[in-house]
Amino acid sequence: MSSNELRRDYLLERWVVIATERKRRPTDFVQKKEEKKREACPFCPGHERMTPPAVLAYVPSGGRIRKEKDRNGFRHKGWLVRCFSNLYPAFTPVDEREKVKTEKGAVCMKAIGHHEVIVESPNHDEHPGVAGIPQLVHVVNAYLDRLHEISAKTYTNYVSIFRNHKRDAGASLSHAHTQLISTPNVPRIVNEEFEASRRIWAKNERCIFCEIIEKEKATSRFIWENDGFVAFAPWASVHPLEFWIFPKRHESTLLDMSKAEVNDLAVALRICLGSLKSLLGDPPYNFGFHIAPSKEDVNYYHWHLEVYPKLTIWAGFEKSTGMFINVVPPEDAAENLREAAQKEEKDL
Amino acid sequence: MSSNELRRDYLLERWVVIATERKRRPTDFVQKKEEKKREACPFCPGHERMTPPAVLAYVPSGGRIRKEKDRNGFRHKGWLVRCFSNLYPAFTPVDEREKVKTEKGAVCMKAIGHHEVIVESPNHDEHPGVAGIPQLVHVVNAYLDRLHEISAKTYTNYVSIFRNHKRDAGASLSHAHTQLISTPNVPRIVNEEFEASRRIWAKNERCIFCEIIEKEKATSRFIWENDGFVAFAPWASVHPLEFWIFPKRHESTLLDMSKAEVNDLAVALRICLGSLKSLLGDPPYNFGFHIAPSKEDVNYYHWHLEVYPKLTIWAGFEKSTGMFINVVPPEDAAENLREAAQKEEKDL
Repeated sequence: MSSNELRRDYLLERWVVIATERKRRPTDFVQKKEEKKREACPFCPGHERMTPPAVLAYVPSGGRIRKEKDRNGFRHKGWLVRCFSNLYPAFTPVDEREKVKTEKGAVCMKAIGHHEVIVESPNHDEHPGVAGIPQLVHVVNAYLDRLHEISAKTYTNYVSIFRNHKRDAGASLSHAHTQLISTPNVPRIVNEEFEASRRIWAKNERCIFCEIIEKEKATSRFIWENDGFVAFAPWASVHPLEFWIFPKRHESTLLDMSKAEVNDLAVALRICLGSLKSLLGDPPYNFGFHIAPSKEDVNYYHWHLEVYPKLTIWAGFEKSTGMFINVVPPEDAAENLREAAQKEEKDL
Repeated sequence: MSSNELRRDYLLERWVVIATERKRRPTDFVQKKEEKKREACPFCPGHERMTPPAVLAYVPSGGRIRKEKDRNGFRHKGWLVRCFSNLYPAFTPVDEREKVKTEKGAVCMKAIGHHEVIVESPNHDEHPGVAGIPQLVHVVNAYLDRLHEISAKTYTNYVSIFRNHKRDAGASLSHAHTQLISTPNVPRIVNEEFEASRRIWAKNERCIFCEIIEKEKATSRFIWENDGFVAFAPWASVHPLEFWIFPKRHESTLLDMSKAEVNDLAVALRICLGSLKSLLGDPPYNFGFHIAPSKEDVNYYHWHLEVYPKLTIWAGFEKSTGMFINVVPPEDAAENLREAAQKEEKDL
């Protein structure tokens, strides 16, 4: 059992994992100039023993995909997508029979949850901006499979699926991969979104996000759409070139996506992240899914994906105040991404 | 008049300056490998014409310090500290007689305010971790002078004084300098602090921060103190090696500091930032003062300085959820910084 703990700020509703499991000594951060040597990639095929066993691997077999788990020291080979626990997890699971109770107003709790890696392809560089659609369909399906299993745990209250692209955006390994973290509480930003959308739903019986999508489709912030999804630069974008991808159908989480929607999301990822790549020469970025909390009946929420290119640095003003300065108006971002998306779509 | 605007997120109480004044084209961010060429430093003596005119310069004269302003094209030379408008301000002032009214619930307002640079020394590399105490006293006095003038403006609701150290922490120039931004609203994080401390004051008639200081002085998170100030690693530190510096006297803002307190703060900056520098080989960091809003009578608030070393990267999880993972427990950070501070103090 991990001794990682979640601590709440003295005053703010802001939680931090004090990660003793992946703990570093302060002096590990002594400033160095050298580049880290490139070692064998632990996510590449043939190196399965360098990672924990797969909790899920998609293995093609006779024209179909078998869903496998590594067991008893055996490692599946020939996979298309492979999921396993992060070697240095920020959150760790417990036995579900163990009663976990957190008192209201607590300022400390155990960092119970899952922290997984989803390797998106056997090909080191098959990132979503360049991947084939069939491969991206596997990736989205793997998100759904892992989300499904982890959401059902009694101790899961939220699941974050996120991606760090390139070292400057926090990726320690360059092989195409996504991460999944489940938390015992509902994180600050998503919780604030839930509360606001709940209030608006209660008052007007309408989804604020459905309204936002409808409105932004008609503005200069619109970027791209297909049958299932729409992409736009949000009105108050925090990051230069930030964009959000929304499903057109009102759903609080990804779990009920149809096959057609899975395909449409794969295409949306390919087109939108491909546009960012072609426009700026493969910049670093982060993305994070926003979905409903696992334990709530949240008809008022509308899941979506937020993509944050990492082009500037949050400095003293941003970090100490929580206010931001964005040097690229979202209308300009959208104009550039819209043109790039049209080209991407032609070339697909 | 600037056309920069402040926009509120669709749902979150999160504001962003859409900075058309310092606007960049999306394609300005095309990924480049080359290092920027080092040019003449516009903050160094002799280059005063490379910056806007000084709104305040401390010029020694006959054993005293004269407070000067550059006027009519003249630039004062021989200064110890020099303050001027940022060349690309995120916030710009208006005529005070102009009535500025922002409606409650507005999602957009003009980015009215000040955005200034405080050059901390004529010596390019005289950063607070190595500066002489007399020079740091000038720096703190300059903070107070600028804060005093800008707080009094009718359109000022908050003033943020912050410092970005090194390029990785967002400093575009390496000459020792601090920045000051005033905003027409109270930023998210500080506002949340005010509200929480107000609630606790109303309920218990005690300052939550006074209580935190008293408590943390007796924990393994304590770092250093002198007569006026105490430094500790906060319980739920978001950043590895993060520390906060609090005045022992309960005051809501810096404006009423005594001469002795100004000196004590100069020493605290020198010791604490010097410890960080000697411990980790001059790492990048940000700091930000948290003070009371300008227009409120906030006896419940207790000003302080938060220092965030920039040793890790906020990635997809942090940015999309507002939850954080800190790989250095504050207790370990404090132990290392405490030892370094003892050495710094001996060597001072």
